[in-house]
Amino acid sequence: MSHWAVPRLNIYLRMLTWQKKSYVCEDASEVTLSGIAMLPGVGVFGTGTTARVLVPLLQAEGFEVHALWGRSEEEACGLAKELGIPFHTSQSDDVLLHQDVDLVCIYIPPSMTKQIAVKALGIGKNVVCEKAATAVDSFKMVTAARYYPQLLSIMGNTLRFLPAFVEMRQRLLDGYVGEIQVCDVRVYGPSLLDQSYGWTCEDLMGGGGLHTVGSAIIDLLSYLTSTRAHRVHGLTRTFVQQNGLIRGIRRVTSDDFCFFQLLMGSTGSGGVCCTVTLNFNMPGSFVQEVMVVGSTGRLVARGTDLYGQRNGSNGEELLLGGNGWLGPEVKEMPLPHLHGLSSMVKALRQSFQAHEERRSWDQRPVAMASTFEDGLYVQTVVEAVKKSSSTGEWVSVEIMSKEPDPNQNLCEALQRNKN
Amino acid sequence: MSHWAVPRLNIYLRMLTWQKKSYVCEDASEVTLSGIAMLPGVGVFGTGTTARVLVPLLQAEGFEVHALWGRSEEEACGLAKELGIPFHTSQSDDVLLHQDVDLVCIYIPPSMTKQIAVKALGIGKNVVCEKAATAVDSFKMVTAARYYPQLLSIMGNTLRFLPAFVEMRQRLLDGYVGEIQVCDVRVYGPSLLDQSYGWTCEDLMGGGGLHTVGSAIIDLLSYLTSTRAHRVHGLTRTFVQQNGLIRGIRRVTSDDFCFFQLLMGSTGSGGVCCTVTLNFNMPGSFVQEVMVVGSTGRLVARGTDLYGQRNGSNGEELLLGGNGWLGPEVKEMPLPHLHGLSSMVKALRQSFQAHEERRSWDQRPVAMASTFEDGLYVQTVVEAVKKSSSTGEWVSVEIMSKEPDPNQNLCEALQRNKN
Repeated sequence: MSHWAVPRLNIYLRMLTWQKKSYVCEDASEVTLSGIAMLPGVGVFGTGTTARVLVPLLQAEGFEVHALWGRSEEEACGLAKELGIPFHTSQSDDVLLHQDVDLVCIYIPPSMTKQIAVKALGIGKNVVCEKAATAVDSFKMVTAARYYPQLLSIMGNTLRFLPAFVEMRQRLLDGYVGEIQVCDVRVYGPSLLDQSYGWTCEDLMGGGGLHTVGSAIIDLLSYLTSTRAHRVHGLTRTFVQQNGLIRGIRRVTSDDFCFFQLLMGSTGSGGVCCTVTLNFNMPGSFVQEVMVVGSTGRLVARGTDLYGQRNGSNGEELLLGGNGWLGPEVKEMPLPHLHGLSSMVKALRQSFQAHEERRSWDQRPVAMASTFEDGLYVQTVVEAVKKSSSTGEWVSVEIMSKEPDPNQNLCEALQRNKN
Repeated sequence: MSHWAVPRLNIYLRMLTWQKKSYVCEDASEVTLSGIAMLPGVGVFGTGTTARVLVPLLQAEGFEVHALWGRSEEEACGLAKELGIPFHTSQSDDVLLHQDVDLVCIYIPPSMTKQIAVKALGIGKNVVCEKAATAVDSFKMVTAARYYPQLLSIMGNTLRFLPAFVEMRQRLLDGYVGEIQVCDVRVYGPSLLDQSYGWTCEDLMGGGGLHTVGSAIIDLLSYLTSTRAHRVHGLTRTFVQQNGLIRGIRRVTSDDFCFFQLLMGSTGSGGVCCTVTLNFNMPGSFVQEVMVVGSTGRLVARGTDLYGQRNGSNGEELLLGGNGWLGPEVKEMPLPHLHGLSSMVKALRQSFQAHEERRSWDQRPVAMASTFEDGLYVQTVVEAVKKSSSTGEWVSVEIMSKEPDPNQNLCEALQRNKN
């Protein structure tokens, strides 16, 4: 199958939207007009690949995207025109305070996510967002989410919505593999760096394979196994520190290779060993394989397909896959993420459609979503892996329970000077 | 392709031998009768799968197997009859001192290997053997090999002889992948335990995935990359401690799951990161995948096939494979090892055929073989991984340079008592 560029996807999804609208007219009892009218208006932050793909997916499901934020007026204006969004701005408040916006989707550099997400909740808007840059930021987001439990606040890890992983989790709960022993994950692909120097090149800004892809895998593993990591070990490397576009005094500090191990579940020898290998020095391919091995069988998700083999059987059986994603591919976004994003938008539609009031939502369709609490856990594991990589030791995962004193370093320095 | 049992292989190889003999009569100039006559007589230690497969392979190449040793008279007698070996015994000296035996092949439990190998060299016999159980044993074997440099002494790691890996190494030397960054190895398969309780169940006896399969991979990685590990980290687990056959007070202590990382080459950030995952809780499948990723491309050996992809190309190309092994499969031995064993025997034939005198051999055909020095390195890495698994820390690989004092513990205890 050939890779289609994003504009082709937009055309495809517009067609779907038109089809749906005419369908509604023909048989109003199936999908009520009021049901679509009650969907919340959406404001989107970001002009990157995910935002470009997300907007047409939202529109295809009946959401109206009212406002778009970009870092510059030009970026925002260009994309808003392209996607048919009536309002664009480079001022975040203009989106957050927009009267037609009830749901805010935040797909911006990690270092800016916390500020927008917390503010959006404070103004009373529902939030779907990507990960923050640090555990402290994640903690602040958790605090906000706890303070506004009536608002939807989910991390946009699309892998949890991918049908292959939903099915995999259900099979694991049903005992397909028996007692889970080992999870083995590999993600290989081309460089994650942007064309120009930016946050993707900076470890501290949330760039790199561990932060970008590893965090989605860490989250996925806890979703699949219904448990969390208590000890981690890992190593990160930056093999390509300069390239044709990033050179001179500039160097990439974010990792392009990373492997880590998570010990999950019970702390004794009975727990689950997870090994994850991420390699983004492999242009021309995208491989994502998630294998769970248990006492009586195993399950493997390759891309968007799920395979299984029980001990004693002769070969693998295809449990789900092949024909899950009917839309065109997007070159910039691997199929599991594209398909997962599409499933997430469908789940959001179901969640909001269940209620009459356009800001109300139903928990059930988005039950598999990653919460802000999950986001904090994931960020904590990511930082533990980084720490392990620098110390070479196993690191315990300790979830922050109160905000660290921002003046702690200062206080310690003063203390030292006094002695 | 169906799995054939060992007896089927024997019949197949006998046929090959007959064909070769008649072929020799027809065209004596091609393979001289004297060439075959000059091959050394062979004595084989062991009655396990490898020995059962090795003997017919040797016979097919024109070696005469004169003597077989088994742990019991019954075992030795049964297999000798089956394979047409004229002499059998359970006394090791009877094989070592056998006047027609010039080459000794040792495929016995690791804890017994050192004793036989060292003695064989001392008597002036050429030796092909499997790994020993400890680094101390390996060191004693190295000492013996250094003392008799005119004798052939190689470790029987068959993977080095597999054409896919010979080709892979050559491509790596030719710069196919550019600068090597990452090696990623996975071996999955069914349990390595014997039917009854024995050394395969015991970590200290040299059982387990790390010792049995991991050591072959450690050796292979140093062969492929032409470098050695300086730091290692790993974790071993025994998920299945008892089964239908091993129960009651008996427990398996050898690992059935293991992952480890090797930092190889230069000690700075420029070295090679190797990750190895071994899982032997996967009945019904055998997967062996060795991937080397470099700055300009990658090479992957899956089973006995070699694939490559250069950066910028659209897909993988098959570099070698498909039709390498024409013989039947052996259920008990994975194809890469079977094919590698066959290639090793061919190389041995070429090595001995090059000289008139039946004990003399040529270095070149067996140049890729693992030496006893390599065996000591591998054993040192295996023990470092075990140490890392128990301490949780990275462990430096320090090759033994003199034999440790066997009374060291005793001396230390006396010292402590004195104080």
